Parts: sequence; C-alpha cells; structure tokens
Amino acid sequence: MTIQTPKTNSARMNATIQASCEWGCTPDGGMARLALSDADASVRRWFIAETKALGCAVHIDAMGNIFAVRPGRYDLPPIAVGSHLDTQPTGGRYDGILGVLAGLEILRALDEAAYRTAYPVAAVCWTNEEGARFVPSCLGSGVYAGALSLQYGHSRTDEAGVSVRAELERHGMLGELEASHTSNPLTAHFELHIEQGPILHEAKQPVAAVSGVQGWRWFEIALQGRGSHAGTTPFAYRRDPLIAFAKLVLAAERVAQSLGGLCTIGRVGSTAAQSTNCVMDDVVFHLDLRHHTAEGMAALEGTMRAEFATIIAGEEGVEITRWDTLTAVQPTVFDTEAVACVRHAAEATGMAHEDLVSGAGHDSVFTARTCPTAMCFIRCRDGISHHPSEYATPEDIAVGTEVLLQAVLAYERKLTAKLEHKS
Amino acid sequence: MTIQTPKTNSARMNATIQASCEWGCTPDGGMARLALSDADASVRRWFIAETKALGCAVHIDAMGNIFAVRPGRYDLPPIAVGSHLDTQPTGGRYDGILGVLAGLEILRALDEAAYRTAYPVAAVCWTNEEGARFVPSCLGSGVYAGALSLQYGHSRTDEAGVSVRAELERHGMLGELEASHTSNPLTAHFELHIEQGPILHEAKQPVAAVSGVQGWRWFEIALQGRGSHAGTTPFAYRRDPLIAFAKLVLAAERVAQSLGGLCTIGRVGSTAAQSTNCVMDDVVFHLDLRHHTAEGMAALEGTMRAEFATIIAGEEGVEITRWDTLTAVQPTVFDTEAVACVRHAAEATGMAHEDLVSGAGHDSVFTARTCPTAMCFIRCRDGISHHPSEYATPEDIAVGTEVLLQAVLAYERKLTAKLEHKS
Repeated sequence: MTIQTPKTNSARMNATIQASCEWGCTPDGGMARLALSDADASVRRWFIAETKALGCAVHIDAMGNIFAVRPGRYDLPPIAVGSHLDTQPTGGRYDGILGVLAGLEILRALDEAAYRTAYPVAAVCWTNEEGARFVPSCLGSGVYAGALSLQYGHSRTDEAGVSVRAELERHGMLGELEASHTSNPLTAHFELHIEQGPILHEAKQPVAAVSGVQGWRWFEIALQGRGSHAGTTPFAYRRDPLIAFAKLVLAAERVAQSLGGLCTIGRVGSTAAQSTNCVMDDVVFHLDLRHHTAEGMAALEGTMRAEFATIIAGEEGVEITRWDTLTAVQPTVFDTEAVACVRHAAEATGMAHEDLVSGAGHDSVFTARTCPTAMCFIRCRDGISHHPSEYATPEDIAVGTEVLLQAVLAYERKLTAKLEHKS
Repeated sequence: MTIQTPKTNSARMNATIQASCEWGCTPDGGMARLALSDADASVRRWFIAETKALGCAVHIDAMGNIFAVRPGRYDLPPIAVGSHLDTQPTGGRYDGILGVLAGLEILRALDEAAYRTAYPVAAVCWTNEEGARFVPSCLGSGVYAGALSLQYGHSRTDEAGVSVRAELERHGMLGELEASHTSNPLTAHFELHIEQGPILHEAKQPVAAVSGVQGWRWFEIALQGRGSHAGTTPFAYRRDPLIAFAKLVLAAERVAQSLGGLCTIGRVGSTAAQSTNCVMDDVVFHLDLRHHTAEGMAALEGTMRAEFATIIAGEEGVEITRWDTLTAVQPTVFDTEAVACVRHAAEATGMAHEDLVSGAGHDSVFTARTCPTAMCFIRCRDGISHHPSEYATPEDIAVGTEVLLQAVLAYERKLTAKLEHKS
C-alpha cells in the first residue's frame, strides 16, 4: 500500500453535495430539509453508511449528533470537521451541508491516501442548527457544549407539537452516548461554511479564515406617543412616535458605525391599528446589535441607550415605554493556533482574503466553548443564503475543502509533534 | 300670539342629544350607529316625527337624505342647518349628531317664538357621512351635490354585501324626491360641529367660525431596497429601505411645516416578511398631505416629490418603485357672507376664537359646491373624536347652538333685505 499525500477530490465533493441534496430538494433548486424530518433522517442514514464504509466508528449521542470517527494512531479525542445537514424551509444546498460533506470528503481523502494520523479525525453532523423547525438554533451543539440542558433540548417542539425526543426515537437517532463534551470530548473543531455575506463576493476572493463570531443582542423597544386625527391636529399638538422613531433609526446607524459594530431594525409596527389619516399611537420595533468584541458590544448597547434617551427627551409627549432584551449572545474568539492553520492553508492558495469575523451564528460558536475551534469561509454568490438561489461554485467548494483538509493536517501535525516531543 | 326673539334652549338641546343617543348607544357611553342600521333608522324616524310635530314638511330624497322644512313667507329654497346622525362603530355622541339636533333645536326655537322668516328654514339629515359602513364618506351629500352618481350611491355595499339601496328600501327611506341640488336646491347650508382637534381645547375658547376645509391627498409609496442578513452584511453593502424611509419621514414634516400644510405618515409596513435579523427588503407607507388652499396643496405635493427624489437619489440601491394617489380632495373655501354671519354671532358671545380651517371633511364640503355654506365649531375635550370618550360640555353646546341660530337669522335677514329691496 502506497502512502500518498492526501488531497480532496473536487469532482467527488461536488457530486456528493448534489447527490445528497436529493433528500429534501425543492423544484426551484433549493432545499427544505427541516431538522429530523424524513428527508433529514434519510441523509443522516446515508452519511452514517458512507462513513462506516470508510471504516469509521459511528457514534450517535442523545441529541442525535453524529460522530463518524476515523481512528488515529493514539486513542485520543478526535479532531473534528463538522456542521449540519438540516436546512431552512426555503433554504439552499450549501449552508451547513458543505461543512458536513467537507468532513466526509476529508475522511475519503485520508482513506484514499491511506494516510495515518496520530489523532483520530471525525466528521460530525450536529442536529437542528437552523432552529427553523425547533427553536432555538444550534440545539445539538448547544446541548453538547453544556449551554442548554438535555431535557430542554429533548422537549423542544415544532409547530405541530412534535418534540425533538419523539422525532429522535422515531428515526432511531436517540443515541446512547451522552450529549456532552465532557464524556465525549473533541480535540478540536473545524468548520467549512459559505460566508452568507457579500464580502468575498465583492472582493472577488474565494476563501478566508474566520477569526471569530460577532456577538449579538436583540431588543424589542416600544415608543408611546398619542394617536390623533391627521387633518385636525396641528404639528404643535402632535405627539407622533413615528417622528421619534425616524430619528432613532438614523442615530442607531450613526452610533453603530462609529463603534465598529452593526445595527439593524428589521421589524417595525404598532400595537394600535394603523390608519392613513391618523397620527400613530405607538411604534414597536426590534433592534439587532452586533459586535466582535465583548467590550465593543457593551459600549454599543450603552451608547445606543444613552443616545436614544437623549433623542426621546427632546420629543415632547413621546416615551420609551419598553426595552426588552430578546437575546444576548457574547462574541466568540476562535483559537489562535487553529485559526492560524486555516489562514496559512488559505494563503497557500494565493487567493485568500484577510481573516473575516462571522456575522451569523454557527455550531462552532458552541464547540469553541469546549475545544480549540476555527472556521473557513468560502464565497457565495451575491452574499445570498437561506434562499433557493444560494450558490457556491464547484471551484470555490474545491478550494475551501482542500484548505480545510490542509488546515486539519497542519493542526494535527503540530499537536502530534508536541505530544511526541513530550513523551 | 306674542312674537318673541327666538332663542335656543340649552336644557332642551342637551337633553335631546342624550335622549336621541339611546338609539345605538354602547355600554361605554359611546355610539355605534352605523348608517342605515336599525338604530339609525329609528333615530331618523324619531327626527321625522319631531319635525312634523313642529309643522314642517318632511321630504326624503332617493339617497335617504331628510329635509324637514319650516315654511317661510316666500316659497323659496330653504336655508338649511344640517349634518348627519350616523356614527363610527366606536364613535361618540356629538360628531354629526350635534349638527342635526342643532337644526331641530333651531326649528323648535323659531316655533316657540312664533318667528316668521321670509325664507323657509330646514333641518337636514345627510345619509352615511361617516363612510364607516358604506365607503366612501359623505355619500348622501356627495350624490346630492352631483359629485357622485345615484347609481354609485345606491350600489355601495357593506362588508356583508348589503347595498345602500336595499337598506333604504328596507327602512322605507328610499324617497321619491330626486337626490339632487338642481331639483331640490338650498339657499344656504349651515353646520354646527365639534372641532375634532385640539385648538379650541388648548385655547380655552368654546366656539369659532370655520372659513373652509383643508384639501387632502393620500398616497401609497413603496421603497424597494434589498433584504440581507443583519449579521453578515456590512453597512457598505446594505441597501436598507428603512434608513431611506427615516429620512423621508423627517423631510416630510420639514416640508409641510415650511409650506403651512400638514403631513402624516400613519401606516407603515412591507410586502416582504419582516425578521429581527434581516435588513428589510422594502417599505410601503401612506402619506397624507393637507392644505387649506389649492395653490398650497399643489406646492406641498410638488415640493414633497422633489425632496423625496433628492433624498432617494442619495440612497444607493434604494428606489421609489410606486407612488399611487389614493385620494385627492381640493380645499373648500366657504362663502364669505355666510362665514361672516357665523363669525359675528360667535364674536357676540365674547368667547370666540379666530376663524378655523377644518382639517376633517364634512357634508358642508359638498353643499359648498351648490350653495353658500358655512360652519361653526365648538370645542371638544382633548380634541378627541371618533371615540367613546368624545365629549362637549352642555355649556359649549348651548353656545354653539345659539351662535348657529343667530348666524342663520342674520343671514336670512340680509337675504330678505336684498330680496325685498329688489322687489
């Protein structure tokens, strides 16, 4: 048996993506493979069969997370390549899918080259990352990381009232392994993902290392004014919450830009009925704040609150009557060494963008709490995802998969050198 | 029979309002007397009986408009005091009701004083002013003025599909008189109404003459941006229609103030689903513009369009894709002499506010197209109307009713003097 340098196979990788997307595809070329649906169970069974055929030991934990482990020379926790196979109800063929199948392709490449690593290498499929069928997102990796309890994870229900546990049992995916990083640790976690944003597309570069994930905080804010007749109420007598809202919208953008963060107002409405010829009575809106550092996030929220208070103080008769926190997730900073391995592998292609910070959440946010973690982004067309038109070229997929393999191998070699130097 | 100076009776007027509001009252003290409902038919039958008891000739036209005419010395078109008896579904006890019952009280005062006018004097009840059950508003006076056809008026249906004509027939209110100012003209039309705004309330004055009615134009405007992910889309790549919208909101107020008009944005939403973590894809809103002169209205719309275009030109990737006119009603300027009669009668109380311009539409907008017309406003608490808490004090009602009587008598004396001078 000749030992070759392992190399991923572009044709095989791309063909595997399209073939696996037969489960859950929609006529418009997109995907509707909701977590633990029949289609999701089918692709998961296929993933188990394919990895078993490569000689992997496949373990399923109590959240249905699947660990396909290719043994190493030592019996150590594996270096994992993971993501998710579930999609949004009107999703695409790359978000998550790319990451799990990159794990499979890496296992295939290692097998094909008969390459022996010191550490086991695993491909991992996390359950219900999208949160589309069962809220919240990253349910499988969240329970694994100890951020959510198993009882909580099992008891989530979909709109029809069907629970995660019931679906795991129905599909034979309720594993005996504890869903926990303490009893089932990983040495490291790497994840290949489409960027889901426009930066690589606009920069015309296919790939970048990801140094971390922005934190985000979601708020629901209510402005109370006073509804009145549009024809009979002169400006001086109005208490129009929409005027105040408009000033807040512009201030929010200004503050976020000045602090290197992001803000978005994506929902706006009112509790009172709206009418063409009435000044609005109240305005209720959602504010989404993002920052890549904890200090920056704190400053962003603090400055936003102060700025909003100043503006509202100048709007006679309008008040902020509610400021509810809906979600608060701290920023994630990935492991320096793991990120360096991805960066070097990306730079070796000669086509790498500088490191990015992920704006969206991923399973790696949770694995990062338990083990060294890094991600690699590839470009997606127009920055679009969560839509049937989501697209990454076969060439970019090939680049990303190969970068991830080389990053994993580099990281593994470093760890092995340390291990064997010590012993 | 002694001839006295006619004088309205405050106790009788206020008691009559409350008694007539037994038909259609709601437990919260408000009214739900939709046009041509059973409650509306009951109060109309009562109005007919009361005016007949005073010796009036009662005519009903083909739109159910009721003309209760007290004969004068000459067989001339009557000087009318009119308004409406229908209310909003959650309305109050004064809007419209006050005006019809002021007509009744004036007839009673004339009768009590055995006062003979040269011109007949009429109390008029116009059908479906509110437009709450049958869209549009001012349906009865609109057909009478020739602004709407009889066929159109008859064919309006409520939400259950019941037509105006069917309801007129059911209640025996489909009169044989043509609904037309040409065959059934009025010499003049006076209307007493609550202000429905805050000016008299804030000025602590009970009464004012009304010199006209603002015109109004309603638009539906759509801004198309580009929806994108709140976390993965840097500001530079966003095409956020809400930022553009916020700028338009503030510009609209600035423009309207500078041109002595009014503007209101009372409805805002989007065609695409809104999501906390997505930049909005589009924003759709309604813009209500008001001005009291035709030139002012034209300038207001023209300047608004130019200002909006300038702002949107600076918002890369955001466009105004639709600007639909929903309604356009020209300003009404009431008759100089009729307004002067109301003003002088109001000033005689020593408590009059300077002339107001009505911000809301009234039946007088349509009568003004056919005969000299004027209105008198009284204060309503906090400027609130179209709500069960709508309120005018018995004292203010007394002042307004008496002012209207004196205005009608003064106008009638002037016309009579001219008539008898000529002959």
